[in-house]
Order: sequence, then structure tokens, then C-alpha cells
Amino acid sequence: MSTAAGSTRPDRAAETRQVIMAAAERLFAEHGLSAVSSRQIAEAAGQRNVTAVSYHFGSRPGLVRALMARHGEQVDVLRERHLRTAAGSTDVRDWVDCLVRPTSEHLAALGTPSWHARCAAQVMTDPTLRVLVIDEALTRPPLTRTLEGLHRCLAHLPSQVLAERGDMARQLIVHTCAERERALAEGTAPPHTSWERTAGSLTDALVGLFTAPVS
Amino acid sequence: MSTAAGSTRPDRAAETRQVIMAAAERLFAEHGLSAVSSRQIAEAAGQRNVTAVSYHFGSRPGLVRALMARHGEQVDVLRERHLRTAAGSTDVRDWVDCLVRPTSEHLAALGTPSWHARCAAQVMTDPTLRVLVIDEALTRPPLTRTLEGLHRCLAHLPSQVLAERGDMARQLIVHTCAERERALAEGTAPPHTSWERTAGSLTDALVGLFTAPVS
Repeated sequence: MSTAAGSTRPDRAAETRQVIMAAAERLFAEHGLSAVSSRQIAEAAGQRNVTAVSYHFGSRPGLVRALMARHGEQVDVLRERHLRTAAGSTDVRDWVDCLVRPTSEHLAALGTPSWHARCAAQVMTDPTLRVLVIDEALTRPPLTRTLEGLHRCLAHLPSQVLAERGDMARQLIVHTCAERERALAEGTAPPHTSWERTAGSLTDALVGLFTAPVS
Repeated sequence: MSTAAGSTRPDRAAETRQVIMAAAERLFAEHGLSAVSSRQIAEAAGQRNVTAVSYHFGSRPGLVRALMARHGEQVDVLRERHLRTAAGSTDVRDWVDCLVRPTSEHLAALGTPSWHARCAAQVMTDPTLRVLVIDEALTRPPLTRTLEGLHRCLAHLPSQVLAERGDMARQLIVHTCAERERALAEGTAPPHTSWERTAGSLTDALVGLFTAPVS
């Protein structure tokens, strides 16, 4: 709630968190997680207090978790919609759609340039942060339900194979989206492409990957 | 050539390069490319001269290129062997084998812990180094011939789809190998697994990915 005199304290703290998160995401995407200090983030966010990151997020992992959670919540809303369409389906493609489309639709909605996909790819290859963020993602109910639906269609596969292919799908979605986001930001994306087209290519490829015979 | 009195100068320079490359690879894998300064690499390599990286490699990109090229040459030898087996084949799996097996065999030969796969994954997600290294890889004749063989089997696919799936395969191989290498180094790799088994899973998945119908 704002007062006539300006923002109240909780409002201002929330605004500051948003500004810090936006600055951090851009810097992480462009320079890499470990190349960017908390002080640089505070400065890029226009904070006079150079310890603003630890003040507002407790720690750098706290900031990264907040960043990923914010996008995670928005992706959840989109995934709920796809889950309603897929309900009861025994077609792998419907569940792969639930895996891929919420991410590509979210990235499309962010516009160009966006930084989230590259930031997520950095987090996923970071030696310490990756576990924290993968664990966080896997507790999101819409993602859990998507994986359950997918596993029901693929019950003939050994559970270890299913787990491996799930990991591969995660890698493929995250890094393919990061490459496209980078190409868009740098103006090198092929013409006549779109996030929707990328999602279609990813879905085709992942249906093939998940349903491939085990040798 | 060594003399009785010790190494000659070119020998010693070559040895120093090796020591610096080994130190750099380990630091890059464990801490991320951008978290590691050239000074830290020189110190970890036991060099009194803190500018040893630029002295021996011209620049940090020069060091990264040298690292990737050294592994690239070793992988080339293994790939030549698989190419002899695949020669003339019209089976996608034979060409996917030529793509996957040389990498997994090279990593198996490095032993545990190794750092190359994680280092390569870092390079592949680095905003500036990735292009340099992808371009270098694509000029290696055994890889070029592998892709030509694969493309002959998949001539029915639109060229853009083929290019996209090639990118996806690269992402999948690099990041799946990096995850396994990390798990091995940290002692968290599932028991009863091996690089050969990982290669088999990757090959199954990639055959599915490459041959998937285009919607």
C-alpha cells in the first residue's frame, strides 16, 4: 500500500528487491555468475549501500534462489493451464508440451532482450548453486504432476533410464533456450524463428528422446 | 630432447605449458571460468611469474583454446577409429556412435577425478569463449566427416531442423558428460554405472532425437 507521501517501508523494500534482482539477472546472464560481485550488483541497482544484496536476500545463494523462484512461480501459472489440457492423456507429446511450452511462453512474454534463460543456464552449470535450484524446481507441484503424467506414459522404461532421460530433457530445455535468448539479445537469431517454433522443435526432439528404444 | 644436465629450453617451456593447463583445467572445472584469475592459475601451477599465463598462451582465450585443442586432438584419434567402423553405413546409430563414443572413451581414459568435461561445459556457456571453441571443434575433419555421415542418413529432414538437432546433440553430450564427471569427482555417481553405460544411454536418446518426426 502506498501513502500520499510516497511508498511505505515494506513497499520500498519490495521495490528495492525487484531492482536488485533485475540488475543481478542481467549481470549474471552477460558476465557469468562468478564474474559478478555482490558489490557490482548493488552498484548496478543504484544502491548506495554496497551490502544491499546480503541486507535484502541474506546471501548470494538467497538472491539466486529468489530470482529462480520468481520465474518459477510465473512458469507454474502457465504450466497449470497446459496440465488442464493434458489431463488424462496417454500421449507422451501432451506431457512433453507441459514440460516445454510453459518455459518458452514465459520467455516470449519477457520480450527481447531477456536474461532469465542465460541466468538459469549459468545456475545449472554452477558447482554449488545447481543442486539448490534443481531441488527447488522439483518441489513445484505443476512440474511434479507433469513428470508423473510423463512417467505414466513411459512406464515400460526402466526407472534409471527414465531418470536419465529426465535429466537430459532438463539440460536440453535450459541450454537450448539460453542459446536462443543470447542469439536474440545479440541480434544473431535466425529470421523467421520464434519461441513457439523453438518449443515445437524441442518438443519433437524430446518426444523422440523419451520414446527411443533402450538398447 | 633432454640433455644430461636437464631439460633444454623448448622442453621446459612445453612442460610449463602442461603444468599451467592442468592447473587451469582443475580450477575452471571446480570454480567456474570467470571465478579464476590468471594470477591464481599461475600460483596453482607453481609459477613464480604471475603473468605466466599470458607469457605462455598469449591470453586467457589462448589458454582455453589450447586446453580444448589438446583434448580435441586426443578425441580425433578415437573418432577416426569409429569412423572406420561406420564407413558407408546408412544407420543413424553408427554415426551417433561416432559422435558420442570418442568423448566418453576419452573421459574414461582420463580416470577419476577428471576436469575436462566440466571445463568444456563452462566454456560452452561462456558468453565470449563459446563461439571460439565451437568454431574450433567444427574444423576438425573427423567431426566434420561424422556430421556428413549423419546428415546423409537424415537427408529427408529440413536443413534447419538438422542444424537445430545438431546443436541439441552438442548440448546434451557436453552437459550430460559434465554432470557425470562432477558426480564421479564428488563420489555421488550411481553405482553400477560407467562411461560406457552413459554413452549407451546418450546414444539411444540421440538416435531418438535425430530420427523424431517433424511436426
